[in-house]
This record gives sequence, structure tokens and C-alpha cells, in this order.
Amino acid sequence: MKALLFDGQLLFQDTLPTPSPPDGEALVRVRRAGICNTDIEITRGYMNYRGVLGHEFVGELADGSRVVGEINASDGTCDTCQRGDMTHCDHRSVLGILQRHGAMAEYLTLPVANLHRVPDAITDAQAVFVEPLAAACELTERVHVRPSQRVVVLGDGKLGLLVAQVLQLTGCHLSLVGRHPRKLAIVEKRGIHVLADPAEGFRRFDIAVDCTGQPSGFSLACQLLRPRGTVVLKSTFHGAQELALTPLVIDEITVVGSRCGPFEPALRLLEHHLIDVEALLDAQYPIEQGVEAFRRASTPGTLKVQITMGT
Amino acid sequence: MKALLFDGQLLFQDTLPTPSPPDGEALVRVRRAGICNTDIEITRGYMNYRGVLGHEFVGELADGSRVVGEINASDGTCDTCQRGDMTHCDHRSVLGILQRHGAMAEYLTLPVANLHRVPDAITDAQAVFVEPLAAACELTERVHVRPSQRVVVLGDGKLGLLVAQVLQLTGCHLSLVGRHPRKLAIVEKRGIHVLADPAEGFRRFDIAVDCTGQPSGFSLACQLLRPRGTVVLKSTFHGAQELALTPLVIDEITVVGSRCGPFEPALRLLEHHLIDVEALLDAQYPIEQGVEAFRRASTPGTLKVQITMGT
Repeated sequence: MKALLFDGQLLFQDTLPTPSPPDGEALVRVRRAGICNTDIEITRGYMNYRGVLGHEFVGELADGSRVVGEINASDGTCDTCQRGDMTHCDHRSVLGILQRHGAMAEYLTLPVANLHRVPDAITDAQAVFVEPLAAACELTERVHVRPSQRVVVLGDGKLGLLVAQVLQLTGCHLSLVGRHPRKLAIVEKRGIHVLADPAEGFRRFDIAVDCTGQPSGFSLACQLLRPRGTVVLKSTFHGAQELALTPLVIDEITVVGSRCGPFEPALRLLEHHLIDVEALLDAQYPIEQGVEAFRRASTPGTLKVQITMGT
Repeated sequence: MKALLFDGQLLFQDTLPTPSPPDGEALVRVRRAGICNTDIEITRGYMNYRGVLGHEFVGELADGSRVVGEINASDGTCDTCQRGDMTHCDHRSVLGILQRHGAMAEYLTLPVANLHRVPDAITDAQAVFVEPLAAACELTERVHVRPSQRVVVLGDGKLGLLVAQVLQLTGCHLSLVGRHPRKLAIVEKRGIHVLADPAEGFRRFDIAVDCTGQPSGFSLACQLLRPRGTVVLKSTFHGAQELALTPLVIDEITVVGSRCGPFEPALRLLEHHLIDVEALLDAQYPIEQGVEAFRRASTPGTLKVQITMGT
């Protein structure tokens, strides 16, 4: 089958064997996949992953029904799973990220329990956004955002724009800090306030969400928070940074790391047209042009790039 | 009056004028004060403070009643105070730490609202522990510690030993990591498990509390936590450190900074003999020997040193 592989370098291959699903897993014919910043980070060495890339997808089962899939494959039996933290399973594999071939291929396999049917009202291009939208929903899953609170999102990338839209639905007083006029226009069109000069917001927010993907995001988030406020970290990136922790103690700040999220809420929000993902789709390429698609996705300022299967 | 001052160096003075309490404040004759690590850090440059040192004390009012006092003097009118976060008041002064002379003197003034009567069952030596014990109680004030959880305290200093005792009262499965046999004997005598080899506890705890006062404490706390666990930061210290934040996102860790706490619970716990503070008292010096008292308190392995007023 055709696939986009990373084995130290990114390459298109069309002779990979079609996978056979082990017990409990389903064979999914992929219709469309999305390029995430994590994929780009992987091609720079993140996670030290080798294999088929991609974890955002919509596909179909043998009976023609369309599905999306949760990316963490858990054993269901370890202490972590038994506690209910299945996405943190001690022995998990992760689609296209950890010991499991990904979605940028004609076929993939995933545990049947990971799959969710896609309602007819959701297009293929929209459905590929279910995985990152679920990650945005994990924020409100883990942190109680009150309608009366002042919340700021840092970053106008794909994740920042999804997180801002999810937060707007809480009714909170929402601001966003970004630096790309084209992206800021998307949030302003939805009535979200753009905080042009972050210094004007110092110590004014109850919750600050770092979606910058930059080491500097955390420090700015802390500056924007009132005492006893909450920073939510959504960004993953390579490497360490110089940080002073004592201000977190003095101001009694809470920091919450947040990663993959629940698929069903994301499907409901898309089905009910409460989130606009189409504005985030910049380009699509057939899988044969996958290397070019990655080049485009890595260009500063680009939002979502999707890959379509030729079949 | 006699006082221990820091003006770039630590010195004893006996000609300082007795303060006159402004409106709303009371004059307190100090009976006894404690040396905290924060005081020692101040003599090393922390907070850039100049003035009378000390924020742990027991004193008496003109009518002879004994009092302890909350250290943050708030304006009660700013947004932060109105929200109920009085200890974070935008315009606060802090006893012996920020723009307010401290407790290592014959007299101090504090807002009347900051003072709490000391029950007869509590001795002077015990009452000086109310302030740090309140800081330990702030942990359970901010974080829900469930009786069924596994909790580890890092650090066997004064704060670590108080925090461990407060946590033990929740009924949780409690361990402590330290390195001073004499201090570990205190916690073991109370039936608290000492985790001799932290590597045996990696990824096994629901909550890890860093009381080490060392930059390395945070990283060890994260290693000991299960996915979705909580790190509580109690340590303040000078300077920054090299940190990678991405593991907090991947493991969905929560970090909670925690500082000054509620005095009434601390008084209740002491009155009911639920916390042993006497085991933590290593030495006491008259204020005239305050410089020597600080030297002793700074000696590695020393627990609490108190200063008594000569009057």
C-alpha cells in the first residue's frame, strides 16, 4: 500500500504491505489524514519515532461506515488503565507516534474500542479535525472554566484556534494573543477579542492557555495570570528551558498539563456546527505528494494541511 | 527597643524606636519568634528586603492576651482582596518580608484583623509554629487529598516535617524522602513510611509535595508521580533552573504552588495535640544573641531555632 514513512527522513512509499489486524483490532481504510505539529516535530527527532506518520484521520470499515479513532491503544489491564486513565496506559502504543504505524497510509489498524462512528452531517475534511478538537476539549475536561472568568489563549496556530473556539462556548470573557493577521482575522470574525499588547493584560486573567509551542509561552502565561490563577499547558516541544518556580509558589499558581481528549464531545460539537474547522484548512495533497504536503505544513503561518488517499 | 535587623548584613540593635500602630493596627509585645528558611534566604538577598526580620511569633496585647498574627497586611479594597484572595493583595505588606518590620523585636504592629488569640493549651514555643503549620495546612486547603491516595513528601526540613504530619491526618498512604537520620527518626516515630530509595517509588504516587527548598526537588517530584498526578510546590528559593515542560503535558501533570495558609485550623490542630512541634525545636536564644541564633539555624541539619525577648 501507499504510505508516508519517517525512518530518519520523510519518504513516500507504495510497496508497504497492508496490515493484518490482530485480535480485537479493526482494519480501517483511510480516506483522509491531517498533518499535526507533532508530526513535524517527529520529523525533527521528537519521540524518536520511526514508522508510518499521522494520527489525525477519517477512514471506513469494511461495511462502508465512516470512523475516526482514538490514538492511544491501551492494554486495559494495568493499574493505570484500571484507574480509568486509559490514555496513559503504561504499555500503550500511539498511532503514528509510539510503536504503532500511523494514518498516512491506505490502511491502518486500531482496537475496535478506539473507533467512533462519524455522523453524516460531518464531512471527511471536518472529521479529520476530531482528534485535535478532542485535545481542545480535554482542557474543559480537566479544568473547570467558569462562565464568569477571564481566559486568555496564547498562540494562533491550529490548536490555539480550536481551543479558543471551545472556550468561547463556555461564555467566558475570552482573549487571544497571536501574531499572524490572517489567523487573528479568523478569531475576530467569531467575535473573540484579540489582545494586541499582552502587557495590557498582565495579572488580569483567571486562566491562561499556552498553545504557542514555544518555550516563551509558559512565562508569558504566568505574567498574564492573577494570583491563584491557572496555566494550562497544551504545547509539546523538544528540549528544556530556564525557569524560576518560586513565582508559582508566591502567587499560588496552578499548572495543568493537558493532552489527548474525549472524541464524543468533539463529534457532537462538529455535528451541531458549533466549531468552525473549515477556516483552518489551508491545503490538501494526494498522498503521493506527501513530502510536499509536509513542506507546506512546515511553512510559517500555515494552518491545517490534509492528505487524501488516492483510492 | 531591641531588634534583629537586616540592612545588607544581619545585626542586633537596641535603640530602635518602638513602633506606633496606625489606625486599625495593634501594638503587639513579642514574646518569642522563630527563624524560618525564608529569613535565611532574605539574608542572602531574597526579596531584596531591608528591615526587622521575622514573621513567626507569639506576642501579647496590652490586656495581656496572647496572640499570633497572619503575616500579609492587605488593603481589603483592591480587586484581589474583593475576590477573597486577601493574602495576595496587590498592595500588601508582609511582616518581615515586604515593606513591614518583622517580629524579631520587642514590639511589632499588625492589623487587628490579622491577630488570632492563642488558647491556653498551647505554649509559647508551640504557638510560634502556628504560622508555618498554617502554611502546611494551605496544602490541604488548595488540593483535595483523598484518604485512599498515595502521597509522598520530599524533604525532611522543618516544613517537610509539618506537611507530613498534616497529611498523615488525612489517612492517606504517606511516604517521605529525606536524608538526615535524626529528622527521619522523627517521622518514623510517628509511623510515617520513609522511602529510602526514591527509584522504588517512580510513577507510583498520586501526589508529591516538594519541600526540599532545592531546584532538584521538582524533577524528583515529577518522577515519583503517576500520570495525571499532582505536584505541590511549597519551596521558595533564589534563582532559576533548567526544566522541560513537555513531560507535564504528556503525563497531564498538575502543579500547584502553595504559600501562606489559614491560622485557625493550625491553632485547632495544636490545641488538640494532633501535631508534634516540640520535636522540631532545636534551640532558643535571647534576642541579644540573634546573630548567633541565625548562624545556628543556617547550620545544615538544624531544625527550628527560636528567639526569646529579654523583657
